[in-house]
Amino acid sequence: MHSQTGRGRVVLVGAGPGDPELITLRGLRELRSADVVVYDRLVDERLLDEAPSHAERIYAGKEPGRHSLSQDEINSILVDRAGRGLKVVRLKGGDPLTYGRGEEECLYVASHGIPCTIVPGVPSFTAAAARAMAPLGSRLGSSVFTVATGTRAGGAVNTAAARSLEYSDTLVLLMATRGLEEIAAEAARVRGWEAPAIAVVDATMPSERIIRTSLQGLVEAVREGTVRNPAVVIIGGAAGVSRRLHTVIHGPV
Amino acid sequence: MHSQTGRGRVVLVGAGPGDPELITLRGLRELRSADVVVYDRLVDERLLDEAPSHAERIYAGKEPGRHSLSQDEINSILVDRAGRGLKVVRLKGGDPLTYGRGEEECLYVASHGIPCTIVPGVPSFTAAAARAMAPLGSRLGSSVFTVATGTRAGGAVNTAAARSLEYSDTLVLLMATRGLEEIAAEAARVRGWEAPAIAVVDATMPSERIIRTSLQGLVEAVREGTVRNPAVVIIGGAAGVSRRLHTVIHGPV
Repeated sequence: MHSQTGRGRVVLVGAGPGDPELITLRGLRELRSADVVVYDRLVDERLLDEAPSHAERIYAGKEPGRHSLSQDEINSILVDRAGRGLKVVRLKGGDPLTYGRGEEECLYVASHGIPCTIVPGVPSFTAAAARAMAPLGSRLGSSVFTVATGTRAGGAVNTAAARSLEYSDTLVLLMATRGLEEIAAEAARVRGWEAPAIAVVDATMPSERIIRTSLQGLVEAVREGTVRNPAVVIIGGAAGVSRRLHTVIHGPV
Repeated sequence: MHSQTGRGRVVLVGAGPGDPELITLRGLRELRSADVVVYDRLVDERLLDEAPSHAERIYAGKEPGRHSLSQDEINSILVDRAGRGLKVVRLKGGDPLTYGRGEEECLYVASHGIPCTIVPGVPSFTAAAARAMAPLGSRLGSSVFTVATGTRAGGAVNTAAARSLEYSDTLVLLMATRGLEEIAAEAARVRGWEAPAIAVVDATMPSERIIRTSLQGLVEAVREGTVRNPAVVIIGGAAGVSRRLHTVIHGPV
């Protein structure tokens, strides 16, 4: 039934930031007609219940201490299953092309002649900003914003990200605890240690925590382990606007 | 029935980039229990059919040549309706806090003691990147990306955005035709006129067009009117990765 040749394809679906209600209608529709679902660690398992009962469910990882697949293994599975005529939904946290390696998977799949489609999702940083009421693009103080991860692909600390504050109002860091001390020191050179900073841990999940602080306080919070990944850190402009909003809504901090 | 005092509140919902299937499940759920829907120009009108039949529907604009409300008028309506105990859904294109002025509305509403919630949406630039297969955060060539509008709140061209290319791999411009020539000239100083550039017009809508070019070609396309707003422009790293992917999938351009 679900193995007609010619139907085989891969659909990369952004599952959104964590709350399973933050997937898109299109993403859910794709999931409901999947023959195979390959899913990541940060995807809520309740979403898997939406796939047909016959669908094969494959956990791709990558959680410390739990077996997970290498990127090569994931790529092979996608091509193998789609090559058998199956519809494969690759379910990723956040958005597939925002540090999700979706492009690497599409490149591999397409190089084997298999169609690859991308359904965008709400990026984790967009959701974190919403939860903290930190407007990344705002007339109130964030005309330009820059997004980066704490470390680059090879593992080097992404200090270029912090230097972007010379031109950007706001810096957003994903998986932010990696390299944070060095990045914060660079950011402080531009904005000072009292610059506003927000960390959102587990954005939109039941375990969500929002820490409103300064660059100095952020470094301490990471050292103490109060901030751990998955964390989104927002430094500068948008964090300042958030502080104003928070004061109006809840009174002075 | 729908006028109990105490229930009054405002929910800002990101409707996503254009395709009505790219709203989130949570956004749809809020819409389906709205007493009042205040919606923007770039919101697909099919979404309005999802609101209850009794719900008041208010068009906020802002389309050239069609009557639309000022920001002050929108703010007043939100407070007036929520003040009568109604649930107001403020439906915005993309994400409410990504150049959507959602924070201004929340600030106003909250200062009147009315609860304001934000449901994030897929930002238009995230969807444009997915459509063009241009990964904004990617190990293949976009470790840091910067997002900006072509002009600042006062109307000045956002040349700081282009200078961010000294530290960012990729520059993303929203409502990109404003000030584009000046920004492209700044970007070319850093990357040269042959740097890869992509324009996505009407991302995810039936009228969508994707223009793959260079910085030089982009300037010409804007001059000729081939690129018009709403356009998302992607310059540098992610546009280069997209070119590689496109060549694998469709053969050399």
